[in-house]
Amino acid sequence: MPNVAGHLYEQVADSIAEMIEGRVLRPGDRVPSVRKLMAQRGISRSTAMQAFQILEGRGMVEARPQSGYYVKPQAAHFLPEPEQAHHHPHHDEYEHVELEGTAASVAAVLESFRYHPENVPFGVATPATELLPNRALNHCLAHAARTAPESANQYDFPPGYAELRRQLAQRAPDAGYQVAMEEIVTTCGCMEGLNLALRATCRPGDSVAIESPTYHGLLQALESLGLRAVELPTHPKTGVSLEALEATLRKTKISACLFTPTFNNPLGSCMPEESRRVLVQDILAPRSIPLIEDEIYADLYHGSERPKACKAFDREGLVLLCSSFSKNLAPGYRVGWIVPGRFQQPVQLLKFMNTLATTTHVQAAVAEFLQSGAFDQHLRRLRRALREQVQRVSNAVAEFFPAGTRVTRPAGGFVLWVELPDPASDTRELHRAALRQGISIAPGHIFSARGRHGNFLRLSCGHPWNARMEEAVETLGRLAGR
Amino acid sequence: MPNVAGHLYEQVADSIAEMIEGRVLRPGDRVPSVRKLMAQRGISRSTAMQAFQILEGRGMVEARPQSGYYVKPQAAHFLPEPEQAHHHPHHDEYEHVELEGTAASVAAVLESFRYHPENVPFGVATPATELLPNRALNHCLAHAARTAPESANQYDFPPGYAELRRQLAQRAPDAGYQVAMEEIVTTCGCMEGLNLALRATCRPGDSVAIESPTYHGLLQALESLGLRAVELPTHPKTGVSLEALEATLRKTKISACLFTPTFNNPLGSCMPEESRRVLVQDILAPRSIPLIEDEIYADLYHGSERPKACKAFDREGLVLLCSSFSKNLAPGYRVGWIVPGRFQQPVQLLKFMNTLATTTHVQAAVAEFLQSGAFDQHLRRLRRALREQVQRVSNAVAEFFPAGTRVTRPAGGFVLWVELPDPASDTRELHRAALRQGISIAPGHIFSARGRHGNFLRLSCGHPWNARMEEAVETLGRLAGR
Repeated sequence: MPNVAGHLYEQVADSIAEMIEGRVLRPGDRVPSVRKLMAQRGISRSTAMQAFQILEGRGMVEARPQSGYYVKPQAAHFLPEPEQAHHHPHHDEYEHVELEGTAASVAAVLESFRYHPENVPFGVATPATELLPNRALNHCLAHAARTAPESANQYDFPPGYAELRRQLAQRAPDAGYQVAMEEIVTTCGCMEGLNLALRATCRPGDSVAIESPTYHGLLQALESLGLRAVELPTHPKTGVSLEALEATLRKTKISACLFTPTFNNPLGSCMPEESRRVLVQDILAPRSIPLIEDEIYADLYHGSERPKACKAFDREGLVLLCSSFSKNLAPGYRVGWIVPGRFQQPVQLLKFMNTLATTTHVQAAVAEFLQSGAFDQHLRRLRRALREQVQRVSNAVAEFFPAGTRVTRPAGGFVLWVELPDPASDTRELHRAALRQGISIAPGHIFSARGRHGNFLRLSCGHPWNARMEEAVETLGRLAGR
Repeated sequence: MPNVAGHLYEQVADSIAEMIEGRVLRPGDRVPSVRKLMAQRGISRSTAMQAFQILEGRGMVEARPQSGYYVKPQAAHFLPEPEQAHHHPHHDEYEHVELEGTAASVAAVLESFRYHPENVPFGVATPATELLPNRALNHCLAHAARTAPESANQYDFPPGYAELRRQLAQRAPDAGYQVAMEEIVTTCGCMEGLNLALRATCRPGDSVAIESPTYHGLLQALESLGLRAVELPTHPKTGVSLEALEATLRKTKISACLFTPTFNNPLGSCMPEESRRVLVQDILAPRSIPLIEDEIYADLYHGSERPKACKAFDREGLVLLCSSFSKNLAPGYRVGWIVPGRFQQPVQLLKFMNTLATTTHVQAAVAEFLQSGAFDQHLRRLRRALREQVQRVSNAVAEFFPAGTRVTRPAGGFVLWVELPDPASDTRELHRAALRQGISIAPGHIFSARGRHGNFLRLSCGHPWNARMEEAVETLGRLAGR
């Protein structure tokens, strides 16, 4: 996996970080000295020094004069993670998604996600533009615009731009599966892909199993298509409960599962590899139930390896993998794709019926950027920055939020899911109060079809840490403690 | 209407063309001489000469040495137009659109529309790229990519790019209506707009009144949304039959009308202004039935004035106007818009759920192109070219197709609807035979939910006339006569 390793000093830093995160090295512990590290790992002085600089940048170690590096108090480690909610099973059946009653409320939240430079951006889940290679990518776009043959401005009918599909097929083995170019359909972002997948596998009135909490856009897509949501409890570490899924399948006809196994938004959970195999091969395949797999965050892992997609375990063509470049490259480009498996034909036709074609030139620009090799280099930098930002926000929450607050330790992505200690707290109120202070957050209720998670909030950590954000977390903590 | 007039010599040419089309001047007639024209209209010699050159370019007049200009045989004028089909009323009710049975056939037709430079392109309805200002527009795109602030690469949430909406609002009075920027939502092409409009006004199982024939993409959109189509007979000159609509409304619950009143594809028909008023104000408003108005061809009028949109007569906010730049500027950009009237809120939410946002940079590029003033100049040239191309293809059909063939005389757009004399002809067969000869056409059955129009074909006239196309029409005529 050539895109995983990175520089040697990064590997060293990562392995020390792992020891800190695994509490092998605890806050206050002395980290092995530069000299020791050189001997232990057979590395140069400068490599060891660079590794410490990275760890210092992440806020994980601090230098004490004349003494060496020590593990910094990892405040977040003192906060427990939220527990998996135990839903009442009879509540989970045949829940028609009804956001209409709260549409105004959700619309107001989404409105607050709009780009307002004056707001502290804990709301919308996009990385800061300064973390994205805008200049290089826009250079590709300008190049595509200048040099594209005239035919490039014809409808690029489904399955979409060939060179982009070639690049995507080349990258599929990173996620543990292999596809032909012809098995990929490009889309207007991941959202269109998810819609097409739902429409190819379900009919209005059908039931879809989803994680709870889950991304509000998925809930709205279900609602707009007249589908019912069956919410399954989802663990902050290991993802959706397979026991709950199996119990549901015994009682209820489920037309499709719609999961984000790799870094669920808002939980950041990551389903273990063996669970993925069980889900795809033991639970769904025998029942011929399709899995719609949202992979949009998968390249943003915090560990040392990209998790395999569920698609990697799919022998029946029942997994429809959806992803895009919106979380790691260019939200505004709206370039996504779907690998629809056995649903290739209906997905391709639905794509035609929904938007006819995806914008040609932005597909060409992304293809050129991928081909240049710059993407993997960019991803390494982005992952490091996002992991550090998540840690910083987490530390600040531990410092400023009321006692008893819980916060996730995500395995990837860049959002934190924060549970306020009082189950009766209403973060809709917090959302409004925070906005008045110029702080954008996402209240928990929009991540459930039934207004669950009312005492939770999602903090997006897409932006580099600064003093203004620290103040904002302090303000949020004060508002939450009222 | 500053964008309508054009140069003086164009006006003169148009007025002579009108006399020829109205058979005031008949084939073989001598056209008023340059000298006479100068006196009659108070114009200069060079203006008169330029007018004749335009008419010669259109194939409408020919110079005879030492004698002046004469009206050329207008072969197409000898072909009658198809008549409005008289459907059996009991066939028109509650027709569930079922393209699934013929999905493979329709998919094969669409596949044949894909860009194949080796095929003669009578199939897909897009203008030739050499008629589009690709260089100037792509220059705008490159400029947008280079100069856009970093924030331009964030999600451009609905209603979409402000500067583009400003330009669209400025142009709305050309179509006889006025809107605020906030009343426009940008979309991924017209197709997304039509989908959003259908989803905002109908629920699965509902019935939608449509023109017959109508664009196959509309039929497929209806099918994919689980809607029923009630086909109304549509006249090649005056558009959908309001009598048939009223008769239907007396018997059937119709949730929306989905019409292309301005240059229906494939008919090229144009509903008279008074019929539009009656449709919107007298028929639909009292019943609170929404009209989804597809305006995608409206800028491509062949006459001297852009027809008013039905939206111009809408006092209740019941008209949802959908359009795009795909037929007149940049098919590959996928930039469209919708003016949803009283359905603004649901349309905006559905847009968010369907594709989240429209690609930012292409919207910026189109906005810049519009702002530069180059668009109207381009449209004038494009209209002239398309009108000439339609005339050329029409002439060739008259020359080479079997006796008894009928062909439309479209009021705008760039497609011809050709009726073969034998009602039992099957143009699906013709489509396949033509493809084998490297000629792409659209068989009639894809323009009906019930496989009507089997002895019709649509010829797209988007490409400049040449000898190869003349040969192709000859080949088609021979194949059709078998």
